[in-house]
Amino acid sequence: MIIILEKGVRDEQIEEIIKQAEDYGFSIHRSTGDEQILLGAIGIQSNFDTRKIKILEGVSAVYRVTEPFRLASRGYKKENTVINIGDVILGANEIITIAGPCAVESEKQIMTIAKIVKDAGAKILRGGAFKPRTSPYSFQGMEEEGLILLRKAGDEFGLAVITEVMDPTRVELIYKYTDIFQLGSRNMQNFPLLRELGRVDKPVMIKRGMSATIDEWLMAAEYILASGNENVMVCERGIRTFETSTRNTFDLSAIPVIHQRSHLPIIADPSHATGIRDKVIPMALAAVAAGTDGLMVEVHHDPSSAMSDGPQSLLPEQFKELMSQVRRIAEVIGRNA
Amino acid sequence: MIIILEKGVRDEQIEEIIKQAEDYGFSIHRSTGDEQILLGAIGIQSNFDTRKIKILEGVSAVYRVTEPFRLASRGYKKENTVINIGDVILGANEIITIAGPCAVESEKQIMTIAKIVKDAGAKILRGGAFKPRTSPYSFQGMEEEGLILLRKAGDEFGLAVITEVMDPTRVELIYKYTDIFQLGSRNMQNFPLLRELGRVDKPVMIKRGMSATIDEWLMAAEYILASGNENVMVCERGIRTFETSTRNTFDLSAIPVIHQRSHLPIIADPSHATGIRDKVIPMALAAVAAGTDGLMVEVHHDPSSAMSDGPQSLLPEQFKELMSQVRRIAEVIGRNA
Amino acid sequence: MIIILEKGVRDEQIEEIIKQAEDYGFSIHRSTGDEQILLGAIGIQSNFDTRKIKILEGVSAVYRVTEPFRLASRGYKKENTVINIGDVILGANEIITIAGPCAVESEKQIMTIAKIVKDAGAKILRGGAFKPRTSPYSFQGMEEEGLILLRKAGDEFGLAVITEVMDPTRVELIYKYTDIFQLGSRNMQNFPLLRELGRVDKPVMIKRGMSATIDEWLMAAEYILASGNENVMVCERGIRTFETSTRNTFDLSAIPVIHQRSHLPIIADPSHATGIRDKVIPMALAAVAAGTDGLMVEVHHDPSSAMSDGPQSLLPEQFKELMSQVRRIAEVIGRNA
Amino acid sequence: MIIILEKGVRDEQIEEIIKQAEDYGFSIHRSTGDEQILLGAIGIQSNFDTRKIKILEGVSAVYRVTEPFRLASRGYKKENTVINIGDVILGANEIITIAGPCAVESEKQIMTIAKIVKDAGAKILRGGAFKPRTSPYSFQGMEEEGLILLRKAGDEFGLAVITEVMDPTRVELIYKYTDIFQLGSRNMQNFPLLRELGRVDKPVMIKRGMSATIDEWLMAAEYILASGNENVMVCERGIRTFETSTRNTFDLSAIPVIHQRSHLPIIADPSHATGIRDKVIPMALAAVAAGTDGLMVEVHHDPSSAMSDGPQSLLPEQFKELMSQVRRIAEVIGRNA
Repeated sequence: MIIILEKGVRDEQIEEIIKQAEDYGFSIHRSTGDEQILLGAIGIQSNFDTRKIKILEGVSAVYRVTEPFRLASRGYKKENTVINIGDVILGANEIITIAGPCAVESEKQIMTIAKIVKDAGAKILRGGAFKPRTSPYSFQGMEEEGLILLRKAGDEFGLAVITEVMDPTRVELIYKYTDIFQLGSRNMQNFPLLRELGRVDKPVMIKRGMSATIDEWLMAAEYILASGNENVMVCERGIRTFETSTRNTFDLSAIPVIHQRSHLPIIADPSHATGIRDKVIPMALAAVAAGTDGLMVEVHHDPSSAMSDGPQSLLPEQFKELMSQVRRIAEVIGRNA
Repeated sequence: MIIILEKGVRDEQIEEIIKQAEDYGFSIHRSTGDEQILLGAIGIQSNFDTRKIKILEGVSAVYRVTEPFRLASRGYKKENTVINIGDVILGANEIITIAGPCAVESEKQIMTIAKIVKDAGAKILRGGAFKPRTSPYSFQGMEEEGLILLRKAGDEFGLAVITEVMDPTRVELIYKYTDIFQLGSRNMQNFPLLRELGRVDKPVMIKRGMSATIDEWLMAAEYILASGNENVMVCERGIRTFETSTRNTFDLSAIPVIHQRSHLPIIADPSHATGIRDKVIPMALAAVAAGTDGLMVEVHHDPSSAMSDGPQSLLPEQFKELMSQVRRIAEVIGRNA
Repeated sequence: MIIILEKGVRDEQIEEIIKQAEDYGFSIHRSTGDEQILLGAIGIQSNFDTRKIKILEGVSAVYRVTEPFRLASRGYKKENTVINIGDVILGANEIITIAGPCAVESEKQIMTIAKIVKDAGAKILRGGAFKPRTSPYSFQGMEEEGLILLRKAGDEFGLAVITEVMDPTRVELIYKYTDIFQLGSRNMQNFPLLRELGRVDKPVMIKRGMSATIDEWLMAAEYILASGNENVMVCERGIRTFETSTRNTFDLSAIPVIHQRSHLPIIADPSHATGIRDKVIPMALAAVAAGTDGLMVEVHHDPSSAMSDGPQSLLPEQFKELMSQVRRIAEVIGRNA
Repeated sequence: MIIILEKGVRDEQIEEIIKQAEDYGFSIHRSTGDEQILLGAIGIQSNFDTRKIKILEGVSAVYRVTEPFRLASRGYKKENTVINIGDVILGANEIITIAGPCAVESEKQIMTIAKIVKDAGAKILRGGAFKPRTSPYSFQGMEEEGLILLRKAGDEFGLAVITEVMDPTRVELIYKYTDIFQLGSRNMQNFPLLRELGRVDKPVMIKRGMSATIDEWLMAAEYILASGNENVMVCERGIRTFETSTRNTFDLSAIPVIHQRSHLPIIADPSHATGIRDKVIPMALAAVAAGTDGLMVEVHHDPSSAMSDGPQSLLPEQFKELMSQVRRIAEVIGRNA
């Protein structure tokens, strides 16, 4: 923490500031210039509320100089985290594609789509059974029946599966069926759920909250890591901005930023970021070019009758074509897919 | 829903669009101008995904024309919702103040603060027992012990109490102690929790999510209303924008907007909106001038040793002075406090 | 500037960083802790691009610790800037109201409105003659004829006048007629215009850019101050956020923030912030309660035939009522109006 | 324009609304459903202020259903605008790269960099002579001397040139030297400058304002098109959001959105979007994958001594490698570079 003192600060004020900071456990180094005095407060307290110093008399500004997270940081672990899910290796050189419908709707639907995405090259099958819906009047998912069907489809076609968990009380149930837990955007700071997911021995994918900074997103990862689960990946799915032409603004710069600041793998979800089919393909390719470790894409064989998010689901032919382009772009940047 | 057709749309495309919309349950009225054709699609389906029509060929744009919420809307209920909590009447002419510490820390602390806020004119005592913290390493609250102390302080000083619930599994426990449930910003779209709170017979205050539009905020209220609980109030606590001088941007315009679009009472929380003590007072007064039905303010008798949010807590003398100014501004706009 | 070094930084890297910073004119103080090394770089270079240090090897982060502006800062000048415009004193205890139509439309219009606002207590008359319009097809203002009429109305009713300048080539023309130059939001960073306005001996009011941080806004003021014109005031008129219920989000917290960081007076414009008449009054009152030094409000005697911004203009009776409430709220916070 | 009436609207209110809309020049079609009445108001008035109807009694909401721009829209012109600048063809199948330093600093500098970018495959040389700087104390550009050097470098190496114009009074001077006018982000709504650029017979590239919606950006293009200059291209360079890890948030989804809504070519500028060298390459590749028609990249042979934006400039070797990857990704999506 760096403490910048006001011009004209009095000696007794400085002493009081130093005393308080020392009481909070910091050791203080003082730099006095002609026009300015700085205090360097050394000590690892990643969760210290810097406003406690900021409100003291004579303080002009305070800067936090350590990352607020620790286990999630690149400083803590230099090499990339690589996650093994059966045969699938996520976070290494290969770009992994997760595909499937927004929600599991019936056995026929999930089986049909599982076959399509497997044939095109996807490695992981997605499908919601408990759906977070903005409206209480919308379809809320097939619940356990959906989980059973998702598992069945994954097993049938040799795909790992991922599904969303919205509630700490369902972790145990979902654990029986899924390979990866998805934590949705709206739950990125659902702390009881984060702690619960820190106790399971299966990977967790944390979607970025709609207005979450990269710091807060990695802090959510820190919750899970600190509770003992090391298999965490993060997923960029668009942030909320003033622009309304697309459902969200897909923040692709987050990909190189995460790679620099953290060792955790990052997935990109162009379907939720854009919200409309014809924008999904260019944004998926852009994510690959930007260096994503994985893609998550909604696919439906009959989107017009999908019970949710049909308009943003790719048609089977589109997905096949996308996968072929993904492989070629991966190659350009020295990866494979 | 209004469907705007593209210029040069062909007749068979129009027929297909009309057919699809009718299949979704709408009845269609067609308006043909020299340069443009519009289709008015009448039918109450507040949760219809308009993108289903938008992706059809020949469609240029689609506009939803009904509020996505129903029970929360002013159209559904003209008169203001008035909530009775013991002697306290919230949503009527009197501006109600909720005050207290961020978190319950000890019996002595909560008793001391309860007395201070009661003497100054507050009607409801706040105090967290389960705290949502960005960092897993921060103080997480006193849990049930905190609830017991909060209840005791409320009873001792004749104050109703409010405390936060973060988890559907704790609703029952918290119900035993609290008068009002607080749903925090990060849980505004925690749908399992919303549904759970729809089933209790005590009022709920929904804090606005950091990036929630007013529509989404009222949709969260709709979840609770639709589950049977009519005693809902909303709380503006700042939204996330590009400006970082204050912790959040306090969106005071939300007050007249909520009053126009909904019958639910609105509370304003300048402590979380600004995040720093010396901005709380002017913003509290501004909220009153803007027409808020209630204020929520953090107060601490010894903020420098508060376990959370000390820097944004008012000192007892400041709170007393604030309450006196609140009363006088209330009078200017024809209310009382 | 504070330079945070990476963990494990090598000695020769540290030497190179220090050398570079010294070459840029800084003197360096080093703080070495157990886990972290900080370099305090002292030297006033308010416009130094800190990224030059950030990209050096071994650097983890760099923080600017001086305000990027100097003349506009409270540190530079402790007492409030008070601006005299004839009899009107802006920036002292009295809250000054600027009122009038969006645009001057005719002699009859501006005379009628001038009388209304004067009678209700306004001190300054507003009226655009050169209008910045998003659409090239909209009314663009009466140009010099509008200036002549504005001046005439001001003189007739003893009101100072303010009007917008959009173009450095019109400064001379507008100077002949106006008492205060208004710099619009879209021109907040029109640097040639800022420099030109730094050379005139009349006050300038700088509207905040729609996405301008408070730092950037005060930097715009710095341009004018650095060119020699000390009579600068700033005007909050709403920022762009994700919320679309109001035209902009009125950032009232900017009022106490500006008062803390700068000595310049601040005006609040609820008409442009909200964009719709029935939100203007509560937001005007809120601005006064928050401590604004002045209000700018659009008023029109016949808004339905106004050539621009009629829907956000107050009716004469509304304005009169507003002024009466403004005076009473001013009194509550120890000011007058 | 669609007018949604309130529930319970009275007949005489409906008549008044219809009368007013007709007076404004619209013809009205009425759709009456069981629960709702809609009025379709047909008539092309792209700049009509819909708030004029919104404030009438009995109106619940008003929606604009025509694009606010006309000449810039895909509806007005189906085929892509292709701009010829000497041998360079922009807006066709080839992805064009614009490269060079932020500012022209000396003859040696611009000649050195021109050779580097030409050799690597750039077609257009960039270099600022009049620089918009946030701080009045920063380097403001070499002015006409810079223009002379830029032209000389372009001619020497067979590159077209682009440079920024900040002021209507400099259009004539800059016209003598440049092939393309660049309109900067901060001037996107500098209407006098837009009109002036509408009168020249050289292409204009409009950078997106930091908080400009895509509508407003295309409205700026409309100003130039409506004044008679058809050679307009737009440039995405990042928007302002809450995320501060990168200087701006690069809105790559704008690329497919612009292609859908307009016939104008789009350029992507990853240097200003990210603000730091190591993020420029992945974001440049992402822009190509997303379908951009051109790239604008800052390159400097000695960035540590650049007078502006050195930290975001690519080194010569990086640029060469980038160009090679750009060509290969272009091929994957069926284009060339």
